[in-house]
Amino acid sequence: MNVTVHGRRRHYRTVTFDLRRNAVCLVEQRLLPHEFKLVAAKDFHQTAHSIQDMVVRGAGAIGATAAYGLAQGARQFRGRSLVAFRRHVETVFQTLKAARPTAVDPVNAMNQVRQAMQAGETVEEQQALALAAAEEFANEDVRHCQDIGKHGARLIRSGMNVLTHCNAGWLAFVDIGSATAPLYAAQAQGKHFHVFCDETRPRSQGATLTAWELAQQQISHQIIADNAAGYLMQRGKIHLVIVGSDRTLGRTGEVANKIGTYTKAVLAHRHKIPFYVAIPLSTIDWHLKSGRDIPIEARDESEVLGAWGAITPTRSRPSSPHRAYVRVANPTSGALNPGFDVTPPELITGIITPLGILRPGDLWPRRRLLQEASS
Amino acid sequence: MNVTVHGRRRHYRTVTFDLRRNAVCLVEQRLLPHEFKLVAAKDFHQTAHSIQDMVVRGAGAIGATAAYGLAQGARQFRGRSLVAFRRHVETVFQTLKAARPTAVDPVNAMNQVRQAMQAGETVEEQQALALAAAEEFANEDVRHCQDIGKHGARLIRSGMNVLTHCNAGWLAFVDIGSATAPLYAAQAQGKHFHVFCDETRPRSQGATLTAWELAQQQISHQIIADNAAGYLMQRGKIHLVIVGSDRTLGRTGEVANKIGTYTKAVLAHRHKIPFYVAIPLSTIDWHLKSGRDIPIEARDESEVLGAWGAITPTRSRPSSPHRAYVRVANPTSGALNPGFDVTPPELITGIITPLGILRPGDLWPRRRLLQEASS
Repeated sequence: MNVTVHGRRRHYRTVTFDLRRNAVCLVEQRLLPHEFKLVAAKDFHQTAHSIQDMVVRGAGAIGATAAYGLAQGARQFRGRSLVAFRRHVETVFQTLKAARPTAVDPVNAMNQVRQAMQAGETVEEQQALALAAAEEFANEDVRHCQDIGKHGARLIRSGMNVLTHCNAGWLAFVDIGSATAPLYAAQAQGKHFHVFCDETRPRSQGATLTAWELAQQQISHQIIADNAAGYLMQRGKIHLVIVGSDRTLGRTGEVANKIGTYTKAVLAHRHKIPFYVAIPLSTIDWHLKSGRDIPIEARDESEVLGAWGAITPTRSRPSSPHRAYVRVANPTSGALNPGFDVTPPELITGIITPLGILRPGDLWPRRRLLQEASS
Repeated sequence: MNVTVHGRRRHYRTVTFDLRRNAVCLVEQRLLPHEFKLVAAKDFHQTAHSIQDMVVRGAGAIGATAAYGLAQGARQFRGRSLVAFRRHVETVFQTLKAARPTAVDPVNAMNQVRQAMQAGETVEEQQALALAAAEEFANEDVRHCQDIGKHGARLIRSGMNVLTHCNAGWLAFVDIGSATAPLYAAQAQGKHFHVFCDETRPRSQGATLTAWELAQQQISHQIIADNAAGYLMQRGKIHLVIVGSDRTLGRTGEVANKIGTYTKAVLAHRHKIPFYVAIPLSTIDWHLKSGRDIPIEARDESEVLGAWGAITPTRSRPSSPHRAYVRVANPTSGALNPGFDVTPPELITGIITPLGILRPGDLWPRRRLLQEASS
């Protein structure tokens, strides 16, 4: 994606590898949207911490970070013993895996790297193959997002208002994003449209990350309270909804995504507004038989009870803006904070995949094709 | 309502009159939920400022404040000339009216007071009548809320989870509230139930005011992000929805209320969950022919772009909690902030009025009865 830093517009990937320094380079996402900063994780321990501490988040982005981290760790090994090397790589693997134990992407990505390494006959060869495989993982993530963009852009016409929820954007992948990919592709085709970003409480990824991306990419947009989408649909102001997905059930077409996605789908259905889900193939779960079996994480209540943001300098405190948490809610009340919800297939117009736009019910019949393309 | 201050539980009205000091006494709502404080407006100018600066808000509460303010202003007059007195009262009336020019409740309330004054033959008599009429206005507001509670409590059974949106509570009226009235009445009947308070972004009145009220009243409750209601309905965790209304169209049964109300109604309808609107009769608009004619206020975008809350003291800044605004959103993005939405009658199970529970379509056939009861 293109980002303007100190007046200069440059293309950045969310995750890259610095060969000379053997470092994994990341956009420090915890500072966004108030500050854009690149950080370098200089060994595999630092890379694991970057995943653990949410410097980097999002399925594709943490997958690529783990892939690079495994290659980085492998390249830290000094010596010629393949046995010792293999033991070392196993330690790196487990360290990176433990950084986000519930995520599947880092493990899948690292398995790809580890498998590619087998072809090497010396430590040096295996180190080189690891890095090549990590690069290939990152490049494939980008290609998949490009393909999602190519297919999804067909849904966008000039003059449209598009609603998004949460951030399934550039920052969640290596580049381009999933739900944002059709927007960026349509813009590249010269289409002019407007985006409403759901704030996406309680973590506000729409107001912070998606809005920041769209601003950097110079796409016309406005943030709205999550409460306002229904009103805008009622008034005919929303023509298309595109969201991402954390997990899509291949058997049923059900989509688990950030809390509030289901609500937008219900509203869109009532107003006959097309509702699309953009997904990389890696998020399809071919095993689970029902959306009710998807575990819904109950997140910390502090997210609902307050908000993180930047405090503007005042005359009495003239420092630069700094991040702070304010307690919004009544101090003696608690909160319930489910992180995700599940949208049933009958509310989903189509699923935008790198292979094309499918109806939710078409995933299972095409499972062979989809599984092959994702491995 | 009962409030515990310094360990003592006492009953308070939101608006009262202090005869000895000729003062209008108010709960300082801008400090809630972080601090409970009563303030006294010592002349009608201060009372007008209290309305203007949002020390007091909510239809019933500002109506009673204006009624008391008019009596207060009338009682500030020194002299015997009825002509000069009438001129003075007119000044008071216009000053209070200008404090919240778009609201109808202060004007309706003051008209009632001014009409009652006519029966007096001396300045002194008219001053006494003004105060009596203001007291009567406040008492009637309380009686209406009690009646809403009486009828609405029948909908609540022990074990239920009830969803509310925004604050149509004690703080918005003289006492008890409209949407909260059935909760307080059911509690008094010994029923045990749980309330989910929608946070109600962007101004968070659910997380701040309603949650504070329920905590004071010791009603079991949790705050949820506005995005979470759909998920909870899907899982069968919500059995009843009760909201308030800023304006209800007598001709159509359409309900204008805080942004997000429509969304909850759509969700409740999908899940066959009863959706009720509790209203005092004064909010029924008998003139407008369509909900599309209700002007929807576009509020300041800063509400959506950030949040007000309390900053917890830290070691480096060990003062007591203080209120601060944090900018949550991307600094270069704007927002769209509609304040209200309109819910159509087909999504409303019933309207809880002081006269009983009516279907939305029953308002117009019973307009004579309803109009008489409200005047």
